[in-house]
Amino acid sequence: MLSGLIPRRTPATVYEPMRYVIAAGGKRLRAALALLACEAVGGKPRQALPAAAAIELLHNFTLVHDDVMDHANMRRGRPTVHTRWDENTAILAGDEMTAYAYHALLGSAPDALPELLRVFTGAFIDVCEGQGLDKEFESRMSVTLPEYLGMIRKKTACVIGAAAELGAIAGNGERRERSALRKFGEQLGLAFQIQDDLLDIAGTVKELGKPIGGDIVERKKTFLFLSALERGSAADRALLRSAVPAGRRRAAHIRRVKALYERRGVLDASAREILRRTDRARRALAPLSPSPAKLMLLHLADQLQVRTR
Amino acid sequence: MLSGLIPRRTPATVYEPMRYVIAAGGKRLRAALALLACEAVGGKPRQALPAAAAIELLHNFTLVHDDVMDHANMRRGRPTVHTRWDENTAILAGDEMTAYAYHALLGSAPDALPELLRVFTGAFIDVCEGQGLDKEFESRMSVTLPEYLGMIRKKTACVIGAAAELGAIAGNGERRERSALRKFGEQLGLAFQIQDDLLDIAGTVKELGKPIGGDIVERKKTFLFLSALERGSAADRALLRSAVPAGRRRAAHIRRVKALYERRGVLDASAREILRRTDRARRALAPLSPSPAKLMLLHLADQLQVRTR
Repeated sequence: MLSGLIPRRTPATVYEPMRYVIAAGGKRLRAALALLACEAVGGKPRQALPAAAAIELLHNFTLVHDDVMDHANMRRGRPTVHTRWDENTAILAGDEMTAYAYHALLGSAPDALPELLRVFTGAFIDVCEGQGLDKEFESRMSVTLPEYLGMIRKKTACVIGAAAELGAIAGNGERRERSALRKFGEQLGLAFQIQDDLLDIAGTVKELGKPIGGDIVERKKTFLFLSALERGSAADRALLRSAVPAGRRRAAHIRRVKALYERRGVLDASAREILRRTDRARRALAPLSPSPAKLMLLHLADQLQVRTR
Repeated sequence: MLSGLIPRRTPATVYEPMRYVIAAGGKRLRAALALLACEAVGGKPRQALPAAAAIELLHNFTLVHDDVMDHANMRRGRPTVHTRWDENTAILAGDEMTAYAYHALLGSAPDALPELLRVFTGAFIDVCEGQGLDKEFESRMSVTLPEYLGMIRKKTACVIGAAAELGAIAGNGERRERSALRKFGEQLGLAFQIQDDLLDIAGTVKELGKPIGGDIVERKKTFLFLSALERGSAADRALLRSAVPAGRRRAAHIRRVKALYERRGVLDASAREILRRTDRARRALAPLSPSPAKLMLLHLADQLQVRTR
């Protein structure tokens, strides 16, 4: 469905990388949420197709530009755009993807359009702010857990929340249904990101498609890392802040950090936080009348919680 | 007016560079065009304020990202964003500027909004394609003059044409007024870009705010360069394609290329092309009823033609 949104136009240097990104697939979580949310408020899923496409394109644009900023080489088991082509190509393809996101959104019903655009543009502003905070945290010595949650709310949860709200708007949902679905998406998004943090160390290479402990190697300020700093002893903090050795000693370092996480109950705390957020998401749906789509949304929440990649 | 569009929000790493770009000013040609076009079709200029702000923000976003891609250090007499901060900051600030462009546009009257969004998003798509073509031309051996005109149409003229059309839409102009103003803007945009090419060699350092002959040093495929290739002898083409010497011999090389341009009538041909496009722009306004705003648009066209920077 999404690949049909990017026409076979020239210049190839712009459109080929765009199609490359879209063809790589992904979970399409945001698109699915928009379609289900639309159905859950009594709309036909196809009313939300433009919004679903738009939010998925916005998400893919953020991946392309974030990968440039993070110098990430692999994404979805393939070279990233700036690795396969170059940075200029990735910047420009990302820009054009945002243009096409709006282009897709303009296919929505005219009466819903202003509200869809407002929520969509709000998510666009938020996700840029979230990425800005994420980059700021890299060079800041101390980041607190609440600050971290504020960052992932903007960077991840707002877009997922917007996906659900857009679906509700496209389906002509009432205001309380809209805000219920927004909250559902946001809490799910928070759970989703913390799960990502947890999978970096609790998953397997095969499940993840990339080496285990990447966040530890980069000393990324994840939910696990920041919880460990809060709960650990002075010696624990010293280990977390120490330089990561290269070569053969690297695996031993990752094992030591993982052992620390287990000893300080960080893995359990993360699992509990995921559960808590998923629970809040489920409860947020209470105002919605029973329907197959509502059941699917609840099922989706459970699935994300037990996902391994 | 524009600086009020970028709020004093956090993270500072996103909003400070945005305000830095907007505070640098510029000609505000696109914003002025939108306001005058609105008035020329009988609207109040303030009806076009959101569109004027949006198109100016879109233009400034392209400058920020293009400067990253071109490794340009100076813009409007100040360091570019990626020079003052870094590339990641420039990428993200540019992204956020497009989000704020849409945010600004959403302040338009609801009945005009869908059409404004369509024209604006079309310009956004075009300008990315134009930049893609521009980058492609850098590594291509042969580019023809018509190809060059097609590139600057997308990269420069479409946004200027859209600025005028957006103004006409915001002012509830009739369809023939809209297309008259669109054509006016596009032809003006073409003249504007060829003037830019000409000023690179015909202007003075003081007027330009940067060294003369920068395009020659980069062997950029400008209107002048491509005309000279078409009109020149084999020896002329060899000079144009030869490596540009560094150090003290560079100035002599620039003088030789300028002499070639004069000998082959390239400077005259460029001046004639600017005149021709400006004339077409003026004539495009024929369908519009006489008004002070129409006179201002005609005056603007004349001004651009004699500008020195």
